[in-house]
Amino acid sequence: MAAFSTRVTDGLLNEIRAIVGDRLTLSQSVRDQHGTDESYHKPYPPDAVVYPRSTEEVSEIVKVCARHKAPVIPYGTGTSLEGHIAALEGGICLDLCEMNAVVAVHPEDMDATVQSGVTRKQLNTQLHNTGLFFPVDPGADASIGGMAATRASGTNAVRYGTMRECVLAMTVVLADGRIIQTSRRARKSAAGYDLTRLFVGSEGTLGVITEVTVRLFGIPEAISSAVVSFNDIKSAVDSVISIIQMGIPIARIEFLDDAGLDAVNRYSGLNFPVKPTLFLEFHGTDAGVKEQAEMVGEICAGNGSGEFLWATKTEERNKLWEARHVAAYAVTAMRPGGKPWATDVCVPISRLADCILETKQDVDASSLYAPVVGHVGDGNFHLVMVIDPGNPDEIAEATALNDRLMKRAIAMDGTCTGEHGVGHGKMDILDAEHGEAVNVMAAVKKALDPDNIMNPGKIVRF
Amino acid sequence: MAAFSTRVTDGLLNEIRAIVGDRLTLSQSVRDQHGTDESYHKPYPPDAVVYPRSTEEVSEIVKVCARHKAPVIPYGTGTSLEGHIAALEGGICLDLCEMNAVVAVHPEDMDATVQSGVTRKQLNTQLHNTGLFFPVDPGADASIGGMAATRASGTNAVRYGTMRECVLAMTVVLADGRIIQTSRRARKSAAGYDLTRLFVGSEGTLGVITEVTVRLFGIPEAISSAVVSFNDIKSAVDSVISIIQMGIPIARIEFLDDAGLDAVNRYSGLNFPVKPTLFLEFHGTDAGVKEQAEMVGEICAGNGSGEFLWATKTEERNKLWEARHVAAYAVTAMRPGGKPWATDVCVPISRLADCILETKQDVDASSLYAPVVGHVGDGNFHLVMVIDPGNPDEIAEATALNDRLMKRAIAMDGTCTGEHGVGHGKMDILDAEHGEAVNVMAAVKKALDPDNIMNPGKIVRF
Repeated sequence: MAAFSTRVTDGLLNEIRAIVGDRLTLSQSVRDQHGTDESYHKPYPPDAVVYPRSTEEVSEIVKVCARHKAPVIPYGTGTSLEGHIAALEGGICLDLCEMNAVVAVHPEDMDATVQSGVTRKQLNTQLHNTGLFFPVDPGADASIGGMAATRASGTNAVRYGTMRECVLAMTVVLADGRIIQTSRRARKSAAGYDLTRLFVGSEGTLGVITEVTVRLFGIPEAISSAVVSFNDIKSAVDSVISIIQMGIPIARIEFLDDAGLDAVNRYSGLNFPVKPTLFLEFHGTDAGVKEQAEMVGEICAGNGSGEFLWATKTEERNKLWEARHVAAYAVTAMRPGGKPWATDVCVPISRLADCILETKQDVDASSLYAPVVGHVGDGNFHLVMVIDPGNPDEIAEATALNDRLMKRAIAMDGTCTGEHGVGHGKMDILDAEHGEAVNVMAAVKKALDPDNIMNPGKIVRF
Repeated sequence: MAAFSTRVTDGLLNEIRAIVGDRLTLSQSVRDQHGTDESYHKPYPPDAVVYPRSTEEVSEIVKVCARHKAPVIPYGTGTSLEGHIAALEGGICLDLCEMNAVVAVHPEDMDATVQSGVTRKQLNTQLHNTGLFFPVDPGADASIGGMAATRASGTNAVRYGTMRECVLAMTVVLADGRIIQTSRRARKSAAGYDLTRLFVGSEGTLGVITEVTVRLFGIPEAISSAVVSFNDIKSAVDSVISIIQMGIPIARIEFLDDAGLDAVNRYSGLNFPVKPTLFLEFHGTDAGVKEQAEMVGEICAGNGSGEFLWATKTEERNKLWEARHVAAYAVTAMRPGGKPWATDVCVPISRLADCILETKQDVDASSLYAPVVGHVGDGNFHLVMVIDPGNPDEIAEATALNDRLMKRAIAMDGTCTGEHGVGHGKMDILDAEHGEAVNVMAAVKKALDPDNIMNPGKIVRF
């Protein structure tokens, strides 16, 4: 039997078994899998993995853990990138994959309530005949609960917002097992503190999100996607800045540098020019999409772009965006055995070209392989550094590069993380970004989780 | 000299005078004015009114108040509607009107940072030559700080969002005088708890907002407004529901019932048909506005609307919206000596017609004069009940009607307040709306303001 941390005892496990029966496992392989995210971070397996099926079961389990002061780590699909699911102090992992019911769809209100384990692709599949879709798209087929917990965004955020904007309400199990509803389904409210936004992005440290009500949007009458390449990074990013500043309601505007584009070409069997490239998507009426595309075309041409390669058929568009979405995997595949370390800064749009160009110089001066991909319409971009996790020199070099990048972004009035979250990977930099406000976060944490059992060791120090 | 509450002593006043000099007044008339909002609520004057000029001065004053455990009540323009500025337990009113500097405009990032006392009209005037505007428009020329504190919205929210969406970051003085920045200027962030959204809508109960960074938007190429009347309320509201469900990006869509329209006609010297009426505004490119207007025209015609009365020139549009904005004053003027009591429910859009129609029946069965006006695109509407504050029977009748309305909205998964906030007027209903979540709000309040000096007696009980 595995060595448990002091707080996970046989007595605690038996109390949980009384709630969930055989939906508790101590299997080493399952525990290892649940301590491992998609990043370079070292795995920290939990002591046990439990598969609850309802908010009430989660509540009962958390009550048991609270009595024993045992850590509780909520788990969606394990696609996080900053060690959010690491059981740093052991504890009970709550894998919510069996809470995968779409509870209610209200097409007439353009919202849906789902259990936290529902993934974004599953939701969109189940919405298929409603004419509506859920837009937040981080690439990975993450769970809606996990996306809410990390305040995820992705390629559509420039038009439709992030989880901050797209979550209307949530059911949350608090650290003592109480169940709350953070808000109601009305589109706006001034009824007290905005608990919905407090729990969106709380990364499991304030409670377990068990149900999420999300906004839906009408599938546009017309959708068209394009790829356009530029001679240099500055021309591409300057085009993005102009497009955003002109208020063109573009749905997606994504950047890959030449290295990133090369990796995508190889991985996805494509043959786009190996140059700094924008992937674009337009949503609207037929006339609206045409008008947007013309305006964007003029801006890009003014910056010396190549021709637009259009994808209007659904299959072509899907292939194009699939290629963009697997960019991190494509880049990782360029170095067999390597692990991806995705940086995640976000800056005001006017500083984006400076931030990317200075960062590119920094990468060029290093020994690292680190293409740039990014949700540039939001001012957010990633270096996908592919590192050998067994090589301390390389990790030190990547750490230093990321530190400089985060400080550069903060100096530009930006953030160390646009969408990946803090986890335990970015706690140190949070002081530099937020200063005294970090103590306010800690005060909120202590008020809602005085024994620090909810995903301890993430976001704020206790 | 006025009788002070036990905690506002001469010693405390002298300490504050040492910070602000003669920008502290004990004048009865000034105190009375600062205890009186625009609602039917009874005035509660503060013990003194202070006019700080900087975040640092606010911090020093709050530190003094914290030492003396004296209440601190932030004051913007006094246009609140739920007694937010009432000094229920006496205390020091911080009137932020002298903090009225636009600190920075970043046109290239489409944002601006202002001191809290800047009003929305002042900001838009100062933005005049940037091609940008700040869209949140509650009608009154409220201060940006006050609008952030009450999570205000208004006529443009259906397109541009409320203060929840339009505030990027804030400077806040906490209950012990510490100064924090809630966030940075990046458009999105996953860097810890969303303190910006926690303080938006906190009504001065968690700290004093001293600076606000807001999103700006490009002034659209084309703007056009229209008024259209219907034979009955249901036809008007059903048109709204269809417009929203079709995803038409309408900028404003406002409803007045026949009684409200009649009051507006009389007050503003207009002669629109005295029928249930929608005020509409379209923003976009020339072609986009035309397309939107055609789609909306078809929907309204399908519901038996009258002709659209168009206003395309700026002066015509301003006159039209001025008439809509003064609707509450127009309705109040119908009953000389009366005070307005504006209800504020917001429901999911599919329930809007039911909610308005059931409420209308309830009004018809009462003795009250209470026209309906509303931001119907968000599912939000107001009854403007004009009451005699000296008549207890009338107040009892209005109280009962509002209680039924709030419970009706909550039963429809809506909220008791879409935009006016809780103040001390809606604390009782908050339990019905939020249940256990109210205790989470109280825990946050206690963590950040353990001595309950920040605008005590609002939102949550201590």
